[in-house]
Amino acid sequence: MSPQKLETNSDLQSFVDRYDTFLFDCDGVIWRGSTIVDGVPEALDMLRSLGKRLIFVTNNSNTSRKDYVKKFAKLGITAAVEEIFSSAYATAVYLSDVAKFGTTNKSAYVIGGNGIRTELEDVGIKTLGREHTVPIDLSSLAEVEPNPEVGAVVFGIDYDVSYRKLAHAHVNLVHNEGCLFIATNDDRTLPGGKYMYPGCGSLLSSLKSSSQKTPMVMGKPNKPMLDCVMRKYDLDAARTCMIGDRLDTDVQFGISGGLATLCVLTGVADEQSVLNPTSPQATYYTSSLGNLAQLA
Amino acid sequence: MSPQKLETNSDLQSFVDRYDTFLFDCDGVIWRGSTIVDGVPEALDMLRSLGKRLIFVTNNSNTSRKDYVKKFAKLGITAAVEEIFSSAYATAVYLSDVAKFGTTNKSAYVIGGNGIRTELEDVGIKTLGREHTVPIDLSSLAEVEPNPEVGAVVFGIDYDVSYRKLAHAHVNLVHNEGCLFIATNDDRTLPGGKYMYPGCGSLLSSLKSSSQKTPMVMGKPNKPMLDCVMRKYDLDAARTCMIGDRLDTDVQFGISGGLATLCVLTGVADEQSVLNPTSPQATYYTSSLGNLAQLA
Repeated sequence: MSPQKLETNSDLQSFVDRYDTFLFDCDGVIWRGSTIVDGVPEALDMLRSLGKRLIFVTNNSNTSRKDYVKKFAKLGITAAVEEIFSSAYATAVYLSDVAKFGTTNKSAYVIGGNGIRTELEDVGIKTLGREHTVPIDLSSLAEVEPNPEVGAVVFGIDYDVSYRKLAHAHVNLVHNEGCLFIATNDDRTLPGGKYMYPGCGSLLSSLKSSSQKTPMVMGKPNKPMLDCVMRKYDLDAARTCMIGDRLDTDVQFGISGGLATLCVLTGVADEQSVLNPTSPQATYYTSSLGNLAQLA
Repeated sequence: MSPQKLETNSDLQSFVDRYDTFLFDCDGVIWRGSTIVDGVPEALDMLRSLGKRLIFVTNNSNTSRKDYVKKFAKLGITAAVEEIFSSAYATAVYLSDVAKFGTTNKSAYVIGGNGIRTELEDVGIKTLGREHTVPIDLSSLAEVEPNPEVGAVVFGIDYDVSYRKLAHAHVNLVHNEGCLFIATNDDRTLPGGKYMYPGCGSLLSSLKSSSQKTPMVMGKPNKPMLDCVMRKYDLDAARTCMIGDRLDTDVQFGISGGLATLCVLTGVADEQSVLNPTSPQATYYTSSLGNLAQLA
C-alpha cells in the first residue's frame, strides 16, 4: 500500500488518535544540525498534553543520555533521560537485562567514547580499554593478551581509537570463549559539516576482518535496539509509530519491528523517494513534524 | 605437474644451474623469528660465489631497507640495501617511476610506520600525516579537509593509527580527483609471539569501507611488487626462481609473475600441503634452504 500523505487537520488528528507512543529519530526530524525544525516544540507539547509517550531514538553512542537532555534543553525542548534511547543505552540494557552481566561479574572491553562508558557504568558494568591510547610496537605486542574477565567487546565510534585498543579487542574476541561482540551501529560514514567522515561501521570493519567475527549491531536499522525499547517500556506495537527522515534506517527500523511509520521530509528523504515503490514503504508521510502543531 | 622434491646433490645442482636470480621470502626461509635457519648463511654464500643475484622480498613495510640490512647483519648474513625489496620500497618505486610523483610535485598522505616514510622520502616524495595522532572530536572534524597537494594515500601497518589519520585519508581519497590509493600489503593478521594481531589488511578495511575505494595492493601475493622487482633489475622470468615457505603468498606470488617457485618446509607449509593438488603448485620443494649448503 502506498504511503498515506498527512495534510489536513483531519488526517493529522486521526493519525495522532491511532497511537499511544511515538518514537522519534532526532536529526532531520526534531532538528537539523543545531537548528530546531519549525513548530516541533509546539507539536511535542501537544502530544504530551494528550498523554502520549514520546521516545527519542538515536544511533549516537558518543553522547550519554544525560548530555542528550542538555542538547534538547539548548534547543528549547524539555526531555527526560527516560525519554531518550541511544544505541549506547540499548547496549547497556542488553548486557544488563539479557546477558545478565550483573550476576556474572563480566567486564566489557570498550572501543568507543564516554557516552558508551557512562551508560554501561550507570548499570553497573565495568568497562576496560579507556587508557589504551598509547602507541605500541611490534616488540611489545605480545604483552597484549586475552583477559578472562572480558565478557563482551563493545564497539562504537571512537575518535581516540588506537592499534592497542584494536589488538586488545581482537585477542579477547578470538580467545575468550563466548565473548559477546556488540556494535552500537554500523553507519558507514558520519556527517561532520561539509564532508562525510568514517563512521562506526567503517572503523568496525577492522575488527570484523581481523577477528572474523560478526557483531550484533544494536542501532537502527537493526532490530536489537527496537527490541530493547519495546521490552523496556512494555509497548504495544499496534499502538506505536516510528517517526524519521530516512527510509533505509528509520522507516526500515519501524518496519522490522512491525510498527507503523511516519516519514517527514525535513531531512534526507523527499516526496519522490518516499513514493518510490522500491524503497522501504512508510505508512504515512508529511512535510514536517511541525505540522502537528496545527492541532494544538 | 606435481612439485619436484629436491633431495640429492644432483637435484640441487641442476636447480641452481637453471636460474640466475633467486627471490627469497625471509621469515620461515632465512630465519624463524630471531633464529637463523641452519646452513642458510653457507647456502647464500655458495649462490653468491656462483655469481647468482639474490633479492630478499618482504611484505614488511614498517622497517626501512637500511634497518633490514642491520637485521641481516645481526643474524650473521651480509646483505646490501639493493638486495632488499620491501612493499614500502616497492611503493616508493611505483610512485616515483610509474606515477611520476617527482615531476608532478604531489605528496603522499601516509598511514604507516617510519619504514614507509623513509622509503618515500629517500626517493624525494614528501609524506604527510605523521603528526596526525592527536585525538579529534566531532565538533572539530570539519577542520579535516581534502588537501589538493595529496596525490596518493599510502597505507601500511601503523601502530599509531588514529581517527584523525583515517579522516584525512578518507577525505583525500573521496574528494581529490585521481588520488591514488596504495596499500603495502593486505595481510589480515600478523604474528606477535603467542597470538595473532590485526594486520595491515584489517586496518585497511576501515578506509576501504568509508571511502568505498579499492586500493592497489603492492605486497605478496599481489603482482605490483613483483612487477617492480622485475622492472627494477630487468630480470628474465625464465631464469628467476621465487623461494618461500607459504603457498598462498610466496608460491602464489611467483606463479602470478610466471616464475619458477621453490617451497621450503622450515616455515608454514609442510610436505602434505605442498603436495595437496588444490594448493598453489610450487615447481620444487625441499626441506630447507640450508640443503643448498651441501653444494658449497
